[in-house]
Amino acid sequence: MTNSADKPLIISVGEPAGIGPDICLQLAADAAATNVVACGDLRVLQNRADKIGLDVHLRPYNPGKTGSLRAGELAVLDQPVANPWVCGNPDPANAPALLQSIERAVAGCLQGEFSGLVTGPLQKSTINDAGIPFSGHTEYLATLTNSPTPVMMLASRNLRVALASTHLPLREVADYLDRQRLEAVIRVLNRDLQVRFGIARPVIIVCGLNPHAGEAGHLGDEEQRFIIPLLNELRAEGMQLTGPLPADTAFIGASEKADAVLAMYHDQGLPVLKYAGFGMAVNVTLGLPIIRTSVDHGTALDKAGTGKANPGSLLAAINQARAMHAG
Amino acid sequence: MTNSADKPLIISVGEPAGIGPDICLQLAADAAATNVVACGDLRVLQNRADKIGLDVHLRPYNPGKTGSLRAGELAVLDQPVANPWVCGNPDPANAPALLQSIERAVAGCLQGEFSGLVTGPLQKSTINDAGIPFSGHTEYLATLTNSPTPVMMLASRNLRVALASTHLPLREVADYLDRQRLEAVIRVLNRDLQVRFGIARPVIIVCGLNPHAGEAGHLGDEEQRFIIPLLNELRAEGMQLTGPLPADTAFIGASEKADAVLAMYHDQGLPVLKYAGFGMAVNVTLGLPIIRTSVDHGTALDKAGTGKANPGSLLAAINQARAMHAG
Repeated sequence: MTNSADKPLIISVGEPAGIGPDICLQLAADAAATNVVACGDLRVLQNRADKIGLDVHLRPYNPGKTGSLRAGELAVLDQPVANPWVCGNPDPANAPALLQSIERAVAGCLQGEFSGLVTGPLQKSTINDAGIPFSGHTEYLATLTNSPTPVMMLASRNLRVALASTHLPLREVADYLDRQRLEAVIRVLNRDLQVRFGIARPVIIVCGLNPHAGEAGHLGDEEQRFIIPLLNELRAEGMQLTGPLPADTAFIGASEKADAVLAMYHDQGLPVLKYAGFGMAVNVTLGLPIIRTSVDHGTALDKAGTGKANPGSLLAAINQARAMHAG
Repeated sequence: MTNSADKPLIISVGEPAGIGPDICLQLAADAAATNVVACGDLRVLQNRADKIGLDVHLRPYNPGKTGSLRAGELAVLDQPVANPWVCGNPDPANAPALLQSIERAVAGCLQGEFSGLVTGPLQKSTINDAGIPFSGHTEYLATLTNSPTPVMMLASRNLRVALASTHLPLREVADYLDRQRLEAVIRVLNRDLQVRFGIARPVIIVCGLNPHAGEAGHLGDEEQRFIIPLLNELRAEGMQLTGPLPADTAFIGASEKADAVLAMYHDQGLPVLKYAGFGMAVNVTLGLPIIRTSVDHGTALDKAGTGKANPGSLLAAINQARAMHAG
């Protein structure tokens, strides 16, 4: 394992109409995050700094060099969008450039230019409105890096919650989650807790798919059919898996008992995680060849340019990325 | 509205193999709950009291009279089961008698003998193993009282979470929840918050069915197809409805902003509610002609007879039932 603390982190600024530019600038003003490079449109950042009244010097990033190191300075890898004058009002015309800027950032991570990627919020519906299928950063990064099993995990101060499925209509979840998929997710989660988080023998709580974890087969058959047998097989390999537990009680005291909780789908796991750690939760993608973390909030279009955005989640995402091992 | 504080509450003791008998006896020993009647098998209760070492005088309930009033006394409406010697090991042979005891308690509530029903935990799988279809108290009480739309709501100190669907395999949820069902649930929730909780104009946060509340139609179509139009129509009638909101953020600060959150299904709403209020959450059934509350935990078979059960949820359920209006 190598820890590339000397290389800069790349931060994708995200949707220029949202608060992504604001929170990057707010952190730069305080030098709360050092050795980072913002990947986004220079004009958007300059305009936003003027709007909020932040005196931040935007310095063009020089490839191979360090990122921002001083308070009031932000190194920018310029990625021009079609329409930079969008504060509060996303323009689908910008979607291709926004995705290209993610590609540029990922390429830099794969080539060792950056130590990891921290992503600001995109507006998925705007990208979809541009005619581009896009269900989220997690899936997009998996495609870019040829990773078969990206795993979304949210981490708050005490609790880590990983998801076995992510951005799917609820009616598609049960068919999507088969034994093969679940096995791949658990292997990625277990391995990345070891490799990226340095936990020798991770303890993982696994939720059931159905309410009451299927109530012994009376509320759905997935637990009996493949979840319980799979967990038994993986335990026989030495993994420390608890469950499948009913989701409504699985999270109680989980932070003391386990290194992560694996929820079967988005709204089974994230309401409690976000309730427990709002403002400080970090989105981490496991199963990628690069380190990637993200803010846990959206674009908050109504707050863009007001100076009222909270950069806490971005700072937490930067610190989380910095703490992870390159593997 | 009448408030029947002088009539006793009836407490169904629940599965005799579990901690239901224990927690009734623990409260009786302290007189923590007054004017209650336990509906269950006298032999089970006496045996459990001896096992735990609680000096509680079990007094046969005299219909039409008050319930237990003194510390160390418990009024019992005797409902013999087939096999009372089951501590820790449920016997399906007891299932018919357990359901009959619920029927007896409900009849007493409907006839004005009792002010309301508080239910101890049953072991659903044991009842199913007896060949009786039973998906939970809520559904059973609805059948007994000819109530078309029972609504399960859990209440902790600050947060109330109601469910638009309850004990269903996850794969059946999306088809079950149609416009008609959702409209009926919201009407019951709104009315019972008014009538039973005395809130003149309830504010209700409604979660989306899909992650991100469907992300403007990109993650499922139920929000666009009927949830949003329905909420608009009900708002036009004067209801104070917020949403549909993404479930992962709907609960944050909800206790300050709303009187209840309506989740679309079991594991979307209950993990956060139980995490936020464990040990003090109460299960309330709305949409019935009687007041009904319940503990929020299961039978905890391994703790039966050990004296280690926590009666806090039962006490909270009793206090909640006492605080509700007869309507």
